[in-house]
Amino acid sequence: MKGVVVKQGDTRNELELATMSQPEPAHDELLIKVHHAAVNRTDILNREGKSGYAVNPILGVEVAGEVVDTNGSELFAAGDSVMGLVNGGGYAEYAVMPADRAMKIPESLLFAEGAAIPEVFLTAYQTLFWIGKLQHQETVLIHAGASGVGTAAIQLAKQLCNAQVIVTAGSERKLQFCRELGADILINYKEQSFDEEILTKTDGEGVDLILDFIGADYWDKNINSIKHGGRWVLIGVLGGGELSNVNLMSIMSKYIQLTGTLLTPRSDAYKEELSQEFSRRVTKYFERGKIRPIIDRVYSIEEANEAHKYMEDNRNIGKIILDMNNA
Amino acid sequence: MKGVVVKQGDTRNELELATMSQPEPAHDELLIKVHHAAVNRTDILNREGKSGYAVNPILGVEVAGEVVDTNGSELFAAGDSVMGLVNGGGYAEYAVMPADRAMKIPESLLFAEGAAIPEVFLTAYQTLFWIGKLQHQETVLIHAGASGVGTAAIQLAKQLCNAQVIVTAGSERKLQFCRELGADILINYKEQSFDEEILTKTDGEGVDLILDFIGADYWDKNINSIKHGGRWVLIGVLGGGELSNVNLMSIMSKYIQLTGTLLTPRSDAYKEELSQEFSRRVTKYFERGKIRPIIDRVYSIEEANEAHKYMEDNRNIGKIILDMNNA
Repeated sequence: MKGVVVKQGDTRNELELATMSQPEPAHDELLIKVHHAAVNRTDILNREGKSGYAVNPILGVEVAGEVVDTNGSELFAAGDSVMGLVNGGGYAEYAVMPADRAMKIPESLLFAEGAAIPEVFLTAYQTLFWIGKLQHQETVLIHAGASGVGTAAIQLAKQLCNAQVIVTAGSERKLQFCRELGADILINYKEQSFDEEILTKTDGEGVDLILDFIGADYWDKNINSIKHGGRWVLIGVLGGGELSNVNLMSIMSKYIQLTGTLLTPRSDAYKEELSQEFSRRVTKYFERGKIRPIIDRVYSIEEANEAHKYMEDNRNIGKIILDMNNA
Repeated sequence: MKGVVVKQGDTRNELELATMSQPEPAHDELLIKVHHAAVNRTDILNREGKSGYAVNPILGVEVAGEVVDTNGSELFAAGDSVMGLVNGGGYAEYAVMPADRAMKIPESLLFAEGAAIPEVFLTAYQTLFWIGKLQHQETVLIHAGASGVGTAAIQLAKQLCNAQVIVTAGSERKLQFCRELGADILINYKEQSFDEEILTKTDGEGVDLILDFIGADYWDKNINSIKHGGRWVLIGVLGGGELSNVNLMSIMSKYIQLTGTLLTPRSDAYKEELSQEFSRRVTKYFERGKIRPIIDRVYSIEEANEAHKYMEDNRNIGKIILDMNNA
């Protein structure tokens, strides 16, 4: 079969479509004919040799496709349309996935749409609810609102908790898209100081929860923007991972809870529980059209390098998808 | 009445015993004849004009004494022996305290022992259980194990959760005292690298919970010492509040939850709930002698400056008490 790997000895770490052996499903794994995979930042780190935890030479952590071999699992039948997280190996014609974390693609959605769901929606669900403990009608600040996780988080916070959603993004086009998804307060971080804007809009109180993909660049402003006793979930360092001059007293005096998380390196058991809870609670929202996967652009599998470049340029609103059908 | 205040215009911020008017209990406050007060780091900050939230010119946030006037409260009777947190005004002959946060002094304990309980035990209880969510038989790292909060936390973690307790301290004398209180693993931070020692003793896993009074100086070693998904409660910055070079990726990749807290500036409602829960759960341990208040030294109220100096030199094991009886 065909699969996308990093070109051997290439100094620019480019990707290439290589001929690989088809994966053998282990006990309790499904064999899936992949229709679409999706691109994630973790794939870029992996391509650059920086992720530290990928073992599969084939990139990709999520797919949507068709079950070819259930391998004895009673959860699915051959021919079922499924989506979910894989432990690497997603950018390929065939992939294996633990059966207990596979999710049925919600009715009426296409494979490409299914591939746009797992990583960003599970990350958003995990950070908003498992870690961030978002409560009904609380206020949440979602940075990078037009990103994959951002667009998922806006919809989940709005639909499941009727939260007041504040987003930051760097263009009017991105902000208007966030509004269509349900965001209440839009802040262009290039034109406004987001902390001042938030304090004005929340009567000086600040927000209950921050989803932070940015890290260092936003540190001080996040401290200013958060309520006393607020929760702050750190899930990315697009704005730098190295901080200088942190004032710990501000964390103490505002009783801030800062929690770091990642999804990809989590255990199989964790991904299983998260996928199952998400599927149970959120599938109906997809089926009723209340929540939708957001696709920016679909590339053919031969264009994996272009797809990565497009994400690195931060040009996307929502997900970047790879179509395996012509591999 | 007599009360201890900062000497006006004194460049060294020394304390003096002044003649003040007796406080008037507001609605729902008890008037208490103070027998003993205790010294806390927050008093030192207050004396230096650095606390930012003290309004009462008389220092002191905790007392033990006798109810003189219940002011209509049905929770206590005149003559009752009580202990608890006051909103300033503790270093004085009389103090007022909201009735709903006053705690009966456990039977068999003296007033001086009662004064050694509220601030450190409530802080330890709050950080271990409310914020740190310590579970049965988890492993907890308690820095400054021989400090006031440290000695309280060792006993609470051991008695209420049968936790594995690891302490750090700077002398053999302090460490042996921690062992008597129940600490399992003793680390002299001046002679050993505490993170290496902890990883050795926990099979490379690290601890579930860190109580951190130190801040900047221990930052990197705390990161090394904590388990994946561990909780870290920041309740003091004895080792500095300004950090340079924080690597946020380590917080993400270990899924660390860092929470800052302080007790003194919390709301009345918070202190009420904390005091009542603590009293309900822990009084019996004091009465059975399973947990005990730890007093290092009792000063007379005229020696308040010496008492502060003694705390600033970090010479104490447990609490420093002020005796008001000869005021």
